Amino acid sequence: MAKKKVSIRQLERCPTYLRFLVSLRNSGVYTVSSKQIAQMMDCSEEQVRKDLQLVSPTKARPGRQRNVVELIEYLKTFLGYNNINEAIVVGVGHLGGALMSFKGFRDFGLEIVAGFDIDPTLIGSKVGDKPIYCISNLDEIVDELNIKTAILTTPREVSQEVVNKLVNSGVKAIWNFVPVHVDVPDDVVVENIDFAASYAILSHRINKKRNK
Amino acid sequence: MAKKKVSIRQLERCPTYLRFLVSLRNSGVYTVSSKQIAQMMDCSEEQVRKDLQLVSPTKARPGRQRNVVELIEYLKTFLGYNNINEAIVVGVGHLGGALMSFKGFRDFGLEIVAGFDIDPTLIGSKVGDKPIYCISNLDEIVDELNIKTAILTTPREVSQEVVNKLVNSGVKAIWNFVPVHVDVPDDVVVENIDFAASYAILSHRINKKRNK
Repeated sequence: MAKKKVSIRQLERCPTYLRFLVSLRNSGVYTVSSKQIAQMMDCSEEQVRKDLQLVSPTKARPGRQRNVVELIEYLKTFLGYNNINEAIVVGVGHLGGALMSFKGFRDFGLEIVAGFDIDPTLIGSKVGDKPIYCISNLDEIVDELNIKTAILTTPREVSQEVVNKLVNSGVKAIWNFVPVHVDVPDDVVVENIDFAASYAILSHRINKKRNK
Repeated sequence: MAKKKVSIRQLERCPTYLRFLVSLRNSGVYTVSSKQIAQMMDCSEEQVRKDLQLVSPTKARPGRQRNVVELIEYLKTFLGYNNINEAIVVGVGHLGGALMSFKGFRDFGLEIVAGFDIDPTLIGSKVGDKPIYCISNLDEIVDELNIKTAILTTPREVSQEVVNKLVNSGVKAIWNFVPVHVDVPDDVVVENIDFAASYAILSHRINKKRNK
């Protein structure tokens, strides 16, 4: 299965399939067709079949009913949600603190274990049950806890400097909530979650409706 | 300009162009070529030219230097950032509270003016300088403040019920931070900001690197 080629859009849709299937299962619905999923997702049946073929070892045929519980397991395995991935939050401001106490991450296999900041009033305190350390201890703690994933929520002026520190400490994946481009070496991946890009779409769509 | 057809991906890229151009201007750089922008964005020069043509009344030619300050203004106007849009946050938990105190929204023309919740210990208090009201007062306050945009950060079990209330009160744009699909009438737009979808991409890319 690892050999199949997957597009960004397909990856983005997988969590949505998963949520839909979980809500079906929770309502006591145990079989579903590609057509039903397509209606919910507002897309074509063919797209749903192609997407689900990526994650599942059985081939989907038009009209075939699929097992909801089985599909949920395939999707979770494909998305890596069955292996909990530990991460740190760097920059415990309003957003960083909120992400540290956000409970929804566990649903997709992510567990935040600590925060880092430079503010002496934060260092030594906790958010939920998670400790906040001084950024000068980053290297030793990342090494000790064997952390490979960091969530970046620093002020934008210092984000590249902090990313350099993270890369030096051995972090390989950076989930960037700061609206700036950061440079990393080839063996490190960055995924930006961009509030401005998402809001741009909302804003454009509402303006289009208004001008109709 | 309103007649040009624009894709979601193009819209998503516009805030990134804007940030890059603002950082150029702040460093005292006042002209830029499509090639330079393409290098920063890690995309083709042709794509940059096409994207900027969308927002600007002057046609870009290969190799031509463009005025940074002018491009910033074109992008801001295109994205509607020059008209401040007032919004409410519904559900003042960890994430909702963080969004209420997040200062970055003003950069793209969004101003949060109030929060709504059902928790009596929150109602009547403030986040930053923004009041938190009881959700039972939604109709009158949305009407009084003439609010058209709501940020949804409720628990997922109640999100559809809250969306129905928002639609009834006259809200036309919902920025949904809750990982569930919500149904709205045709004259209302929803844009989902999906942490799970973004994390799925990070997770997949890091796994691909590991398996190399």
